[in-house]
Amino acid sequence: MQQQPPPPPPSMMSNSSNEQPFFPDEPARPIVRTAIPGPEAKKTIAHLDRVFDTRSLNMMANYQNSYGNYIADVDGNVLLDVYAQIASIPVGYSNPSLMLAATSQDMVSALINRPALGNFPQHDWAEILETGILRVAPKGLNQVFTAQAGSDANELAYKAAFMWKRRMERGGADAPFTQQEMDSAMNNQAPGAPDLSIMSFRTGFHGRLFGSLSTTRSKPIHKLDIPAFDWPQAAFPQLKYPLEAHAEENAREEQRCLDEAEKLMTTYHNPVAAIIVEPIQSEGGDNHASPAFFKGLRALTRKHNILMIVDEVQTGVGATGKFWAHEHWNMEDPPDMVTFSKKAQTAGYYFGNPDLRPNKPYRQFNTWMGDPARALLFRAIIQEIERLDLVKNTAVTGDYLYAGLENLASKYPGEVENLRGKGQGTFIAFDSPRRDEVLAKAKGVGINIGGSGAQAVRLRPMLIFQKKHADIFLEGMEKVFAS
Amino acid sequence: MQQQPPPPPPSMMSNSSNEQPFFPDEPARPIVRTAIPGPEAKKTIAHLDRVFDTRSLNMMANYQNSYGNYIADVDGNVLLDVYAQIASIPVGYSNPSLMLAATSQDMVSALINRPALGNFPQHDWAEILETGILRVAPKGLNQVFTAQAGSDANELAYKAAFMWKRRMERGGADAPFTQQEMDSAMNNQAPGAPDLSIMSFRTGFHGRLFGSLSTTRSKPIHKLDIPAFDWPQAAFPQLKYPLEAHAEENAREEQRCLDEAEKLMTTYHNPVAAIIVEPIQSEGGDNHASPAFFKGLRALTRKHNILMIVDEVQTGVGATGKFWAHEHWNMEDPPDMVTFSKKAQTAGYYFGNPDLRPNKPYRQFNTWMGDPARALLFRAIIQEIERLDLVKNTAVTGDYLYAGLENLASKYPGEVENLRGKGQGTFIAFDSPRRDEVLAKAKGVGINIGGSGAQAVRLRPMLIFQKKHADIFLEGMEKVFAS
Repeated sequence: MQQQPPPPPPSMMSNSSNEQPFFPDEPARPIVRTAIPGPEAKKTIAHLDRVFDTRSLNMMANYQNSYGNYIADVDGNVLLDVYAQIASIPVGYSNPSLMLAATSQDMVSALINRPALGNFPQHDWAEILETGILRVAPKGLNQVFTAQAGSDANELAYKAAFMWKRRMERGGADAPFTQQEMDSAMNNQAPGAPDLSIMSFRTGFHGRLFGSLSTTRSKPIHKLDIPAFDWPQAAFPQLKYPLEAHAEENAREEQRCLDEAEKLMTTYHNPVAAIIVEPIQSEGGDNHASPAFFKGLRALTRKHNILMIVDEVQTGVGATGKFWAHEHWNMEDPPDMVTFSKKAQTAGYYFGNPDLRPNKPYRQFNTWMGDPARALLFRAIIQEIERLDLVKNTAVTGDYLYAGLENLASKYPGEVENLRGKGQGTFIAFDSPRRDEVLAKAKGVGINIGGSGAQAVRLRPMLIFQKKHADIFLEGMEKVFAS
Repeated sequence: MQQQPPPPPPSMMSNSSNEQPFFPDEPARPIVRTAIPGPEAKKTIAHLDRVFDTRSLNMMANYQNSYGNYIADVDGNVLLDVYAQIASIPVGYSNPSLMLAATSQDMVSALINRPALGNFPQHDWAEILETGILRVAPKGLNQVFTAQAGSDANELAYKAAFMWKRRMERGGADAPFTQQEMDSAMNNQAPGAPDLSIMSFRTGFHGRLFGSLSTTRSKPIHKLDIPAFDWPQAAFPQLKYPLEAHAEENAREEQRCLDEAEKLMTTYHNPVAAIIVEPIQSEGGDNHASPAFFKGLRALTRKHNILMIVDEVQTGVGATGKFWAHEHWNMEDPPDMVTFSKKAQTAGYYFGNPDLRPNKPYRQFNTWMGDPARALLFRAIIQEIERLDLVKNTAVTGDYLYAGLENLASKYPGEVENLRGKGQGTFIAFDSPRRDEVLAKAKGVGINIGGSGAQAVRLRPMLIFQKKHADIFLEGMEKVFAS
């Protein structure tokens, strides 16, 4: 691991040759020494498999040797990483600024003295929240409930929604629980455990615990054999690309989906307390919808007294050219809750409405309620994003990268289909008829890249991905397509 | 925070006056300067309440000033802590050995380069598991699936159980999923999302996410307004104390509960895939049962082809005088899965049967799948437990503490009822008719202690709690009882 003072923020140049690098001592190019997995990786994987399921293993990494945009493996291969731990590394491997934060006295104490935050918060918890997580709170949302990962962040938001819904039905915060509610809750029966639901969207992904998995609609392999709640799913728009050429058709498709959503909101047998939606469906194949669609959903939820939860677990924290992807909607009326995880390196949900604090303590509670160590790290990540102006970087680099992919798409029309994510920073994807082959071959040219949905190639570079990296990526992909 | 070389392991002495302290420079006694909360705490709490729900707040702590068995607040009060962040601090606040681990190069890299472990594990992940988490694996269980907290550890174990059950029903690992299963799973309907269940026990606690909460049966306030699965609960034995005086009656009560459990296993309309049970019901009021009861459950689960999950989230990692509380059962046939969290400072479940690895990859999967930073910390905790022989310490100190409480019980029979946890290390509890008043008054004599269930006072000191601490605790409680 290389430790050094952080570099000064580069100015944004118009092409890659004269841009100032964020990681000046990064490798100049990928290094491919062996097939991947190489001989050392094969040994290491065989060892690991004795105690840990390795069938989903992609690369056996060495993170001490990984730096900036480059991931190292155990055979001396060093790949340009545009997958970034499923979109969860924000500011580069072994980032020197994060290294400083990770060795601070505050961090050491947070690591070894982990509190039960709801009972025994640390004296500076308000300050850690205010100078960190809450500094980047989405407009209109000034409170946060911290969690551990995206799945439980979503589930805690669902719990807040159910408590809110029942509070409204009951007639306010002061209406007491009835004996019947208390008794039936203990038996997992209504009215104490109500038959309410969360509505999600086809091909959406919201996590894999029991409540979140009930809203996940990505692939059978994620859901098979696991009991699920009888909750509704609405259609998500299936847009045609390029968007400019199909404007009218796409608007009709979005209206059709809004109509179906409204029908479920008003008729589903388990009444809908909240909807959850991703700004870009990220596991389900990088499916986009227009700001008008999301504004339409907000209007419907208002009309029918239903909460709107925006799942920014994968889209949040800068990659789309805005800090939060839903800022692209320019919505007057903010969502009720926004969930986050991944690049935040911690998790939770934001909310603004005081009614979303339950009427009594210990209703929304668990032992740890998040992790101050990870909250300190998120604060350091936010500072690094601001210092290097990285949200602007993803916007600028994203446009450059998108233009390069448009070029490839015209040169290799059978390889790059339905290119999407224009104006969405580096959160770009395209469909590839031989997707899995393309992903595997990319490793051979020094690029680590992932898929989503049935045939999408999804780009999830870090926020420090620059034009020079885009050049390397585009060259590499051209080699793959030409092969 | 005081940093210094770790002390040598003390030998176990027979009384407190000549025992060697684990933390020689710990405060000699609690320091009580103000009412709790004091003036500084009140200000800090008011500040925090603007962004974070403080209604469950117990103390506003300063962890940099907390050391060994003592928790400091922001007004200069320093309390002997026998609650330990709801049983989750293992080897003392600001433990010097953990501080060394927390500042290691490996830890820094783990913190700032958090991998998606299922796809891109780090090169030394097998070694971290084998020299840490797996080194203390319960007998018969040689594999681990890592998670974030107790709730999701349990839910992942439930998922493993459901996949296993359907695999058996389907006729083995190679039996393919049908189209009907795949289609119905996407709609949250059987057979793809099967109507199977997890059986739990009355007054048990297994977490607060949707699946785990469906098995939690502690208090209405934990469950009200949250949709739940239609899963069965069996009676948990309600033993009479002292155990010696009610042997026959208690044996009958346990048999009654076993009979009820078997009836549910064979007749519940949503067939039972697994049962989950705590060795000591820890949130539900410190309810114990005999080894015979748990062996009886194991026999019933074998008989009816149901898995047995033992929830050691609160009981695990040394506090009961064994590393795992279920070792007290001396069971020939180990449980199928054992879950852990809290004192491990990480979470997950152990298993041994290879059939509990799902038949295909990506079925038991999520982005982070645990946290190598926390796994490194658990390894350091294990090393500290071994270095200081702390499991033996909890056994020895526990017996000493229990004898002292017996003495108090005979002196103040109206204050200490149903004393329990004999031979279970420091995992001791008693019922207190004026429980909440006792807990509040304990702060005034310098002791931080918690409750469980409706009227239990639960002791959850750290593993470094010694006889001298027991003396301070017993003196303090006597003052409270005499008041």
